[in-house]
Amino acid sequence: MAKGLPKRSENYSEWYNEIVKRADLAENSAVRGCMVIKPYGFAIWEKMQRALDDMFKATGHVNAYFPLFVPKSFLEKEEEHAEGFAKECAVVTHYRLKANPDGDGLIVDPNAKLEEELIIRPTSEAVIWNAYKGWIQSWRDLPLLINQWANVVRWEMRTRIFLRTAEFLWQEGHTAHATEQEAVEEAERMLGVYADFVENWMALPVIQGLKSAGERFAGAVETYCIEGLMQDGKALQCGTSHFLGQNFARSFDVKFVNKQNELEFAWATSWGVSTRLMGALIMAHSDDNGLVLPPKLAPIQVVIVPIYKSEEDLAKISEKVSPIFDELKAAGVSVKYDDDDKQRSGWKFAEYELKGVPVRLAMGMRDLENGTIEIARRDTLSKESRPVEGIVEYVRGLMDEIQSNIYAKALAFRQENTFPVDTWAEFKDQIEKGGFILAHWDGTPETEEKIKDETKATIRCLPLDAPGEGGVDVYSGKPSNRRVVFARAY
Amino acid sequence: MAKGLPKRSENYSEWYNEIVKRADLAENSAVRGCMVIKPYGFAIWEKMQRALDDMFKATGHVNAYFPLFVPKSFLEKEEEHAEGFAKECAVVTHYRLKANPDGDGLIVDPNAKLEEELIIRPTSEAVIWNAYKGWIQSWRDLPLLINQWANVVRWEMRTRIFLRTAEFLWQEGHTAHATEQEAVEEAERMLGVYADFVENWMALPVIQGLKSAGERFAGAVETYCIEGLMQDGKALQCGTSHFLGQNFARSFDVKFVNKQNELEFAWATSWGVSTRLMGALIMAHSDDNGLVLPPKLAPIQVVIVPIYKSEEDLAKISEKVSPIFDELKAAGVSVKYDDDDKQRSGWKFAEYELKGVPVRLAMGMRDLENGTIEIARRDTLSKESRPVEGIVEYVRGLMDEIQSNIYAKALAFRQENTFPVDTWAEFKDQIEKGGFILAHWDGTPETEEKIKDETKATIRCLPLDAPGEGGVDVYSGKPSNRRVVFARAY
Repeated sequence: MAKGLPKRSENYSEWYNEIVKRADLAENSAVRGCMVIKPYGFAIWEKMQRALDDMFKATGHVNAYFPLFVPKSFLEKEEEHAEGFAKECAVVTHYRLKANPDGDGLIVDPNAKLEEELIIRPTSEAVIWNAYKGWIQSWRDLPLLINQWANVVRWEMRTRIFLRTAEFLWQEGHTAHATEQEAVEEAERMLGVYADFVENWMALPVIQGLKSAGERFAGAVETYCIEGLMQDGKALQCGTSHFLGQNFARSFDVKFVNKQNELEFAWATSWGVSTRLMGALIMAHSDDNGLVLPPKLAPIQVVIVPIYKSEEDLAKISEKVSPIFDELKAAGVSVKYDDDDKQRSGWKFAEYELKGVPVRLAMGMRDLENGTIEIARRDTLSKESRPVEGIVEYVRGLMDEIQSNIYAKALAFRQENTFPVDTWAEFKDQIEKGGFILAHWDGTPETEEKIKDETKATIRCLPLDAPGEGGVDVYSGKPSNRRVVFARAY
Repeated sequence: MAKGLPKRSENYSEWYNEIVKRADLAENSAVRGCMVIKPYGFAIWEKMQRALDDMFKATGHVNAYFPLFVPKSFLEKEEEHAEGFAKECAVVTHYRLKANPDGDGLIVDPNAKLEEELIIRPTSEAVIWNAYKGWIQSWRDLPLLINQWANVVRWEMRTRIFLRTAEFLWQEGHTAHATEQEAVEEAERMLGVYADFVENWMALPVIQGLKSAGERFAGAVETYCIEGLMQDGKALQCGTSHFLGQNFARSFDVKFVNKQNELEFAWATSWGVSTRLMGALIMAHSDDNGLVLPPKLAPIQVVIVPIYKSEEDLAKISEKVSPIFDELKAAGVSVKYDDDDKQRSGWKFAEYELKGVPVRLAMGMRDLENGTIEIARRDTLSKESRPVEGIVEYVRGLMDEIQSNIYAKALAFRQENTFPVDTWAEFKDQIEKGGFILAHWDGTPETEEKIKDETKATIRCLPLDAPGEGGVDVYSGKPSNRRVVFARAY
């Protein structure tokens, strides 16, 4: 067991911070709110990127790259968007430093003031729709299905590694369509892609839904989202997909000639997921021994540790292990053989547990004599001895099983922590205990706001698959025709 | 032929700009000096990235991500580095906008001034070595072999798409080593990786060499580089690899306990290539019909165009072409079947020529009857009719041949345009005509500077493989023991 890792039950927040640190995933940088993603953390992010990128391309999207800088006047163009995004942001005002004439070091050159300030993109709708104006003339130019992988900056006051950082990495899809229906379908399609990725790669079940007007993306007509439940009972928004209507086309004057030969504004969507998913991955599955990674996203899927006292023993074990290593590798498994003699095997076991390696194989002299190998699962912490014969097939099957099991565990957790609630007293009681609350809502921003003020709970979403159901609002007592999902959230 | 594409021989610069525009590679954005990399251009860049990333990983490197922002004080720490980089750069001074109390729109909130200005990274040595301080304690922590893919900003006064832009994309490797020798070997290894990539993927021969002191990276002990020759006779630096000595370790106080149990500063390298390579790729191979892409970097390697008059003809051709398409795809070839009926085949031929697609297959009704297919090469613009039988094997072989031929052509061009020059009159004459000039240099910055002032020629590099040779400096007449490479450069 990792010495000194705080327990989830005692201090969830410290437990999270320590896992991030000790599994070598990331650290805070000297720049307020900005993180350094360390190689082990970045290797997980790269696996996420690759899987998502493949899914985007399979659904017809291509990548491009747009500038980091948004001229201030662009941000002002879409009113709601400006309201939502043009606030806490990094502003470039000058383009030169010079030697300090009155002393040491460098100063900002007052003669190098920009005529118009540039904002570091908090999101790229404005920059991209400004470019689309030149790309879209006719319905033949549509749809435009473009994605970009980029860094963005939002000057958040309270930051938390991966979950809320001033600079973060993400992808942002920006599509343009000839009809409203196509755009809505695109927004829904990409929500489906996100749900597929988070459930089948990250092994985290999500609720797909629509945001209430108050939680909508600034400038969107509808915001679709996927919501996951973390082990402390708080919700985490894992991705959003926006139907933007013609708002950005109107603000940036992007018109096209439609099939009826009429000028019309283009219809838009945008959708994104970010390094925040790293936070979700850590918080959803990890335990008091450290990180638990689903095999599909683990940089090291299988580690093999020899247990030996002499160089001769090591040589014998290595010889036996070598074909297992090769076969696993040939089968596309990411495998590491750790025969580093600077650390004891016990230390290594704890280290790979901490780092969430899904399967650990260990072979000592007794195993060697018996033709067996010890196989340990990170998800259940169970161990068994198996014959070396057939171990590769077994490991491959086990990885699928671990992937499914981690998902099943998270799903069971969510089910146990989802509560239909019908009275305000119950609501207030349950929200303290955490989980998703399914409650009737009268549909008004006023009620939503009051519930938030009194309990810090927000409407996570109006689930897409919820059956219509008559009832009364849990707070106002007014009539309601559906339950929505409330929770405290990251 | 593409209508109106300027000829290289008449206006090289316009020819370049028009190819970038009409092949849909990139465009200038509304932000001065920043480009939009369009999907077709970005697809080429993605292929470059993938190949390079695989090469970096094969040589033991891992990826990570460091912040976009460099605190001003960090840039000041390494003196020469500050001198070289902390000048024309984007400076963030504020972190909030607010509604304009005196009118419309948004203004920078004067109350949200940063205590210390943040510079958008022009390169990341400072930020990374500040982080490395916490990562390196002992020789056991070394080497650190880390790369990052990122955007950087240098506020260039004169910009040119891909070649010199305010924001550009690149990768920057930053390694730390326990000994000087290891660091030098690393810098040389990565130069070799770059040369391998540029020659074998981009099909562009390069000279590997060392920069003169005057052309060195700010803060480096030695700068290695690879230099390519463009079709207008100007040189283009394709990549650099720096041996940084202990300069950054000293500035950021990164010490480690070495094997002799003594505290020592770590040894460093950094190395990078950027979207500038896109400019090199375009300028090295393209012709008056448009882009010429080496097959290994072509987003579409083979295009198949049906030539038909009726829907029935198209159906018959499609049926015949379908297995060719499938087999090419199964063989890992990126192939497109263009049966779009909105454009004529002649238009398509010109379009794919403009976009540099290496191989074009075309089938009409006569081909169908004869069991043949027309095959056209982009590099030579030659066409031939071949039996459909065996066409897939033939195309695969042809792609290798095209890759080699493009390289051979560029190599022959370089050989024809490399001139040993021994007198100053000859030098001044030749530099006007372009090409690499091999001339003796006395090794002094004074002479280097004077040659540059009089001719705009710079020392591109001291080639690594040049034989020692006695002679006299072409300008000063002082003794010299080697020839160096001079050229005008991008």
